[in-house]
Amino acid sequence: MPSEVSEPPVLAAGTLRVTPLGGLGEVGRNMTVFEYDGKLLIVDCGVLFPEEHQPGVDLILPDFEPIKSRLDDIVAVVLTHGHEDHIGAVPYLLKLKSDIPLIGSGLTLALVEAKLKEHRIKPYTLTVSEGQGEQVGPFDLEFVAVNHSIPDALAVAIRTPAGLVLATGDFKMDQLPLDGRLTDLRAFARLGEEGVDLFLVDSTNADVPGFTPLERAIGPVLDQVIAKAPRRVIVASFSSHVHRVQQVIDAAAANGRRVAFLGRSMVRNMTIAEDLGYLKVPDGVLIDYKKAKDLPDDRIVYMSTGSQGEPMAVLSRMANLDHAIEPGPGDTVILASSLIPGNENAVYRVIDGLTKLGANVVHKGNAKVHVSGHAAAGELLYCYNILKPRNVLPVHGEYRMLLANAKLAQDTGIPAENTIIGENGTVVDLKDGVARVAGQLDLGFVYVDGSTVGEITDADLKDRRILGEEGFISVIVVVDAATGRIITGPEIHARGFAEDDTVFESVKPKIAAALAEAAQSGVRDTHALSQVVRRTIGRWVNQQLRRRPMIVPLVIEA
Amino acid sequence: MPSEVSEPPVLAAGTLRVTPLGGLGEVGRNMTVFEYDGKLLIVDCGVLFPEEHQPGVDLILPDFEPIKSRLDDIVAVVLTHGHEDHIGAVPYLLKLKSDIPLIGSGLTLALVEAKLKEHRIKPYTLTVSEGQGEQVGPFDLEFVAVNHSIPDALAVAIRTPAGLVLATGDFKMDQLPLDGRLTDLRAFARLGEEGVDLFLVDSTNADVPGFTPLERAIGPVLDQVIAKAPRRVIVASFSSHVHRVQQVIDAAAANGRRVAFLGRSMVRNMTIAEDLGYLKVPDGVLIDYKKAKDLPDDRIVYMSTGSQGEPMAVLSRMANLDHAIEPGPGDTVILASSLIPGNENAVYRVIDGLTKLGANVVHKGNAKVHVSGHAAAGELLYCYNILKPRNVLPVHGEYRMLLANAKLAQDTGIPAENTIIGENGTVVDLKDGVARVAGQLDLGFVYVDGSTVGEITDADLKDRRILGEEGFISVIVVVDAATGRIITGPEIHARGFAEDDTVFESVKPKIAAALAEAAQSGVRDTHALSQVVRRTIGRWVNQQLRRRPMIVPLVIEA
Repeated sequence: MPSEVSEPPVLAAGTLRVTPLGGLGEVGRNMTVFEYDGKLLIVDCGVLFPEEHQPGVDLILPDFEPIKSRLDDIVAVVLTHGHEDHIGAVPYLLKLKSDIPLIGSGLTLALVEAKLKEHRIKPYTLTVSEGQGEQVGPFDLEFVAVNHSIPDALAVAIRTPAGLVLATGDFKMDQLPLDGRLTDLRAFARLGEEGVDLFLVDSTNADVPGFTPLERAIGPVLDQVIAKAPRRVIVASFSSHVHRVQQVIDAAAANGRRVAFLGRSMVRNMTIAEDLGYLKVPDGVLIDYKKAKDLPDDRIVYMSTGSQGEPMAVLSRMANLDHAIEPGPGDTVILASSLIPGNENAVYRVIDGLTKLGANVVHKGNAKVHVSGHAAAGELLYCYNILKPRNVLPVHGEYRMLLANAKLAQDTGIPAENTIIGENGTVVDLKDGVARVAGQLDLGFVYVDGSTVGEITDADLKDRRILGEEGFISVIVVVDAATGRIITGPEIHARGFAEDDTVFESVKPKIAAALAEAAQSGVRDTHALSQVVRRTIGRWVNQQLRRRPMIVPLVIEA
Repeated sequence: MPSEVSEPPVLAAGTLRVTPLGGLGEVGRNMTVFEYDGKLLIVDCGVLFPEEHQPGVDLILPDFEPIKSRLDDIVAVVLTHGHEDHIGAVPYLLKLKSDIPLIGSGLTLALVEAKLKEHRIKPYTLTVSEGQGEQVGPFDLEFVAVNHSIPDALAVAIRTPAGLVLATGDFKMDQLPLDGRLTDLRAFARLGEEGVDLFLVDSTNADVPGFTPLERAIGPVLDQVIAKAPRRVIVASFSSHVHRVQQVIDAAAANGRRVAFLGRSMVRNMTIAEDLGYLKVPDGVLIDYKKAKDLPDDRIVYMSTGSQGEPMAVLSRMANLDHAIEPGPGDTVILASSLIPGNENAVYRVIDGLTKLGANVVHKGNAKVHVSGHAAAGELLYCYNILKPRNVLPVHGEYRMLLANAKLAQDTGIPAENTIIGENGTVVDLKDGVARVAGQLDLGFVYVDGSTVGEITDADLKDRRILGEEGFISVIVVVDAATGRIITGPEIHARGFAEDDTVFESVKPKIAAALAEAAQSGVRDTHALSQVVRRTIGRWVNQQLRRRPMIVPLVIEA
């Protein structure tokens, strides 16, 4: 694995350069840059959601540094599908240059445009469908239908004189998809016969044995649960999962219930999906949630957001009785969603809250109400055998997933030296059927916090972690500039540290004494005096209380 | 559910009062107080480990408030087994009164004594075995063998003139336990025939359908993995799981490997377990880890702590190359443990780190290397049918688990009104076969942080969460006491907020102006002036940066 930073050589003529900026070693912020003949093509531009060691961060963007000086060379951004981890960073890229063309399917572009509208950006777009070809700059693109947990997902084949690349985006191979739109293995076979030189392939479920179950297996379960529900039904799922919502609508209609959407993103996305024909709603089934409360309890299904326990989403607010709809005894809540690692405590808190209110909570743990959107190991083997790619670059996944995917490729006969385990910034050059690592860029995390982008650094996050674990103690002393004598203070204030500040009375004389001693030995510099304060109180807190809060000493001259 | 606080009546003669202080509505800090005729018996005294919304907290104790004024009435503490969530708070109770007798099995008391030694407390103890009876004050105790993920666990039957109570502690019903020590269903049957008036029963797995698999099913898997391992093997598990460690030792010995213990608690607990005969080590199998490195790589198994991704434990340090043993290609790491909710990200980071170093990581997700220590729904049904208790109080579990357990009891024919869903502080009175909720105490969380106990409050934790999410900005201004004129400042310092403090230059004049205006209108009080500072900079930060850090204004007179 190329973790040593090394500058790649100048790109030779006739060579394609592939540089993932995000999505390798992580699940999220997928973005890959393809360079040929001085022009850049970008595939996907997503966000990563922060983990608990990145507190207060709203979003994490790919590091755009390698392309910042080359914005004019970008011929297009291809978006494989409309999930946040593939489109969420587009607004931040277009803020650097707003006229970069976006290419994607109808639903994908509609979702991107709705997002860009909130950022007041109107993009240049090109809508494409499966089977379609487009030439952008030196890149000859062909789009291939793939099946995923959002409709209208596309893989993209990229032809240049350097060879043929296939990037799957996210995909699985449901053999009985709800919309009949299969991952197009005939196209994969055709591309395979032509000769795929480099295969960029989704690794999310590469370490999951077997096959992802059929999406349509969920419908009958939803139907049964709704049929037996004595009162209201509330279903929570991802707001982009059109097929899951379709199954909820169908199960509701079959049981004589109407459906109301709850949550801003659910309402927005399903309006788009229905307008474009991806969501098929029987007449008279949808109802505005404000009118829904006039229906009998056993005639309504609420379709809501918040399946990951997000504190501000509808489901959490319901569990806290902080929403117009207050669940109660006899109500049924279905979490028709995965449980993303890291969200467990939040989700269980919501489940417990709803259970306490008397609701019956049905979830993945006690019923088959969710299947994954990604190809498991068995499906990936099919892919490798049909495509027989010369070289493989597993993408979209943490390290162990990338590794598991490479091993699957090797199991089908692809030589180990042709399976590249990369990380973000790994530069892969392709020419004459040979792919090799040409360098490793040094990329970072770009944090969005409020309206600031890239202002928060890892050092700030480290400070936040200390503050969040231990709180802080600030000590203010005003000293006479000439004599170093204390005029006011030490005043000591703490937050996140203890119930009241009287605990500090015993250390104040120690600080005063330490400052007096320093002043006597001629120390006048306020920074040096601050360090005296820091050492004195830091040692006291550590010895007396076995704690290590952040110490913020401030010596001011007056 | 009795969540309104209500003072219980004075305890009537001939009535047994049961008050859980911890473990209801949570997994941890199990502790129940039994009162009869003015005397108190305590069963278990454990700790709860903090979640992410309780940052910086080391441990959470049960709220001892209801017994603090009655320490002299406590006749004994019965400890059902040696896990932290049942014994971890004993040192904090004994710090209030050190001569309260502890009753438990040989292993349980040995583990408690080792813990108390670190707190420099030497307890009064009484060792008991299954089948044994003891009279302590008005309580006639009988101990019953139960099977759990630590040896020598006991249930306790408590007889008073008010009736017969059975408290399971933690248990499961492995029908082929490694040590042959079954949960004693013959004793359960005998107690059931006598008539169990109140059954306090472990709820941890009540919402898990079916039966917990046999512990011995893990042995062959460990054996296979170790047999195939080309180089070193590192197994991580809980440091109290003697049977799991036994299976590792047996698999190692069968494959001609020696075993070295790693991690302070692993070494300590296994030394105790071997000394007392619970762990059976063939001659010449154990080796000190410092000598183990001289062995060939395929002759050693390291048995270590850190299976939950704890940052300071051995396994995390290995993954960060911060340990004498550095895993590398060809090494095999086995996580023979559960994945406790909330630890997922930490554990996956460790797995990824080890995988990057080249190790093959085997875990619950890809091999059968763990089974639970708690009875699942199918086992609990057996219990209810054998015991036929008159009343049931599900304990040890979050609300949904308690509820699932009560439903199982009802499925076997116990009337719903005789299954009590309580919470911590719910007071249950038992007399003449009737159990009823008599009141609800208002109990809190007692946080241990460093050497402080109960100093950190929920308000401090809220401050920590804000600090941890957003950081803080402190503004210091020194003003003239008489005129309110600024002498020094505003000085602005921030932590966890932004890369440098120059961002604040533009707000300083605004603060100065706001203070001048306040001074002009006669405001002199430094607290009022601080509020002026807070409002001015708070509004600016919110509008300019869409952020909400903690604002710490300080106006000092000089």
